[in-house]
Amino acid sequence: MILHNFETENTLLNQFIAELRDHDIQKDSMRFRKNIERIGEILSYELSKTLDYKAETVTTPLGSKRISLPQNELVLCSVLRAGIPLHQGLLNYFDKAENAFISAFRHHPENKDSFEVIVKYLASPSLNNKTLVLTDPMLATGKTLENVYNAMKKNGTPKQIHIISVIGSKDGIDYIKQIFPENTHLWIAAVDETLSSKGYIIPGLGDAGDLSFGLKL
Amino acid sequence: MILHNFETENTLLNQFIAELRDHDIQKDSMRFRKNIERIGEILSYELSKTLDYKAETVTTPLGSKRISLPQNELVLCSVLRAGIPLHQGLLNYFDKAENAFISAFRHHPENKDSFEVIVKYLASPSLNNKTLVLTDPMLATGKTLENVYNAMKKNGTPKQIHIISVIGSKDGIDYIKQIFPENTHLWIAAVDETLSSKGYIIPGLGDAGDLSFGLKL
Amino acid sequence: MILHNFETENTLLNQFIAELRDHDIQKDSMRFRKNIERIGEILSYELSKTLDYKAETVTTPLGSKRISLPQNELVLCSVLRAGIPLHQGLLNYFDKAENAFISAFRHHPENKDSFEVIVKYLASPSLNNKTLVLTDPMLATGKTLENVYNAMKKNGTPKQIHIISVIGSKDGIDYIKQIFPENTHLWIAAVDETLSSKGYIIPGLGDAGDLSFGLKL
Amino acid sequence: MILHNFETENTLLNQFIAELRDHDIQKDSMRFRKNIERIGEILSYELSKTLDYKAETVTTPLGSKRISLPQNELVLCSVLRAGIPLHQGLLNYFDKAENAFISAFRHHPENKDSFEVIVKYLASPSLNNKTLVLTDPMLATGKTLENVYNAMKKNGTPKQIHIISVIGSKDGIDYIKQIFPENTHLWIAAVDETLSSKGYIIPGLGDAGDLSFGLKL
Repeated sequence: MILHNFETENTLLNQFIAELRDHDIQKDSMRFRKNIERIGEILSYELSKTLDYKAETVTTPLGSKRISLPQNELVLCSVLRAGIPLHQGLLNYFDKAENAFISAFRHHPENKDSFEVIVKYLASPSLNNKTLVLTDPMLATGKTLENVYNAMKKNGTPKQIHIISVIGSKDGIDYIKQIFPENTHLWIAAVDETLSSKGYIIPGLGDAGDLSFGLKL
Repeated sequence: MILHNFETENTLLNQFIAELRDHDIQKDSMRFRKNIERIGEILSYELSKTLDYKAETVTTPLGSKRISLPQNELVLCSVLRAGIPLHQGLLNYFDKAENAFISAFRHHPENKDSFEVIVKYLASPSLNNKTLVLTDPMLATGKTLENVYNAMKKNGTPKQIHIISVIGSKDGIDYIKQIFPENTHLWIAAVDETLSSKGYIIPGLGDAGDLSFGLKL
Repeated sequence: MILHNFETENTLLNQFIAELRDHDIQKDSMRFRKNIERIGEILSYELSKTLDYKAETVTTPLGSKRISLPQNELVLCSVLRAGIPLHQGLLNYFDKAENAFISAFRHHPENKDSFEVIVKYLASPSLNNKTLVLTDPMLATGKTLENVYNAMKKNGTPKQIHIISVIGSKDGIDYIKQIFPENTHLWIAAVDETLSSKGYIIPGLGDAGDLSFGLKL
Repeated sequence: MILHNFETENTLLNQFIAELRDHDIQKDSMRFRKNIERIGEILSYELSKTLDYKAETVTTPLGSKRISLPQNELVLCSVLRAGIPLHQGLLNYFDKAENAFISAFRHHPENKDSFEVIVKYLASPSLNNKTLVLTDPMLATGKTLENVYNAMKKNGTPKQIHIISVIGSKDGIDYIKQIFPENTHLWIAAVDETLSSKGYIIPGLGDAGDLSFGLKL
């Protein structure tokens, strides 16, 4: 896996990440969603630097110009429900892409700390020869992305996979390195040291789904 | 059910509906999603006229003012995946609301025209004493809303239900009248005469999910 | 003048107005601008109910439909700089309109309370037979709108004028009633009782330009 | 001047530039404005990589984290009216910045091709020790930026200047190199070879103000 950890670079992403993490600013769920959306836009832009380009001729009112344009057939796939604001950010920039949505949640049998990830809903186009962009705001254990990836395989084999995430744990990143093809890119705005026994990123930001959309039963 | 059919009134909603229906303009999926979002905003605003208000005091830099503010605890619930742009419109205006997401799709056994609606994914807060706003862009047969409503009942009993939809059929509206409580409001931008044997609204606009997000397998 | 004062009705506008007025929430200039934008959208929608409509045929993928569509040639005109977020709201809904921008500021000779309004910058299309929508977030004394109107007259005679404003004073509204043609519509989200000797609306919200964009020299 | 010409790199900016230039896609003024806005966002992000950062402690619900945050006091300044959508893009990302607006237009005495640039409206905070971000979508002759810069000097001396532009001409860039301090950064999405005798960028895209807002008298 090719890791692009933007925490190591000083950019505006840090401002948005800081606001996402701050437990006072989190009370404004509109700003929380907006910050995830902005991070989705910026990481889409950074990702775009690795796409395949071909020169095409564009006709302006005053002449014509050769411009290198991306040729990839993109499929943006987000994990519900936390992924929706991140998906919106990607779609703001890749507005012509195809889209997929998948549900995944942690099931804790007998209320133990350990859990399994259940995938239920999947709406996706064919992935054959497409460029798949998988998004999940929190890359904690990596088991959600693993299960999502396994569930999506039945829809075909993409020629290239990108993962976009907001905050990850070192353990989670190590885990998915073994799951995804070697040429997979991971674009992530921050990486934290610790993963708690319950599978939470520390210091992280809490539950991105709850902070975007409220608690669920 | 209290029906608010905005097709009978001349407003900007008609402009957005016309662009959604137009098979040339539909090629621009960004504009398609934007138009659904704008309709979601406007119908949220119209719905807000029926909420419960109480005067509160607001302190400005130059004095203070009594303002009547909505007191309802709103839960916005959209049906995946077509409902996401409509949900975004609602959330643009009700930015502090709680949110629920539910998946529903048509299952055609043995490839027949007849179908059943399968509900799989549900993420929702408690609905007890809340104001539930259910959104589905296309109200065709009404069976999706029926199944969604039945699935959500286990999360509690809202004190008031609103349904927001973009285009409906007369048959679909008649059908859900029997399902939902009498004091339910339906806010809808246009109502078409015909429902095809396959359950499509005619002339309608086609498949709102496909036009927003691309085909799915 | 036909006055549409939305303060007398309970709607979501009150929520946005309350946040604009609240001196704590004002610290978030992004939310301040967003609230002005949302008010601009809603008042545009309400205004659209008075436009001229004509039925046109729209072709969908599954049939065709007659839809009544607005026929007016709109020119949206905002007063700089405070008017920019309000203008953005109008343009979000009237996305095909022509646009005009005009600058106006209060000049206090010898630092007295009294002032004159100076118009400097004007970029506008012809207004002949157009529907002019003038926007200024704060309708305080009415002298800005008077001067703006006088400056725009040299660009032609609109067939209809609408004014969109966020908060006004009673005195200001009385003043412009004498300036604009009788069939002019005023769409306004709140009206306050008092106008201070310095020409500030009380309780108002302070200076909308400063709160949107920061202090100016 | 430190030139950052993004045309030499393959990124999503090319897609937005291609749509801006395309005389068919230009008919959709909402998409035109949106593309300028997206370019403003991306160039703001790239610019942010050169700001001054300092580590601060942020408290999350689960711990605390040191994050490097930008310390600059930004003033975003756009040239009216064409600069408004670009300004909106900058403000989408630098949402806490101070703002300045300035008008400049070309005056052609006796209808000759030659012109002078007239600055009329200026609303700006103090610039002393601030980071000034000047935006103008089309950097044609460079004379607008020269006049804007000269007019702004009376408001103080910024410690750093950035210029953000969409399309420039080689001659225009050479011209402003002599005007601005050596450490000024220019962030630009594309650079064209030719400047016509009337001062238009060829192939360019036409008049960015007219395409965003309609013709003006």
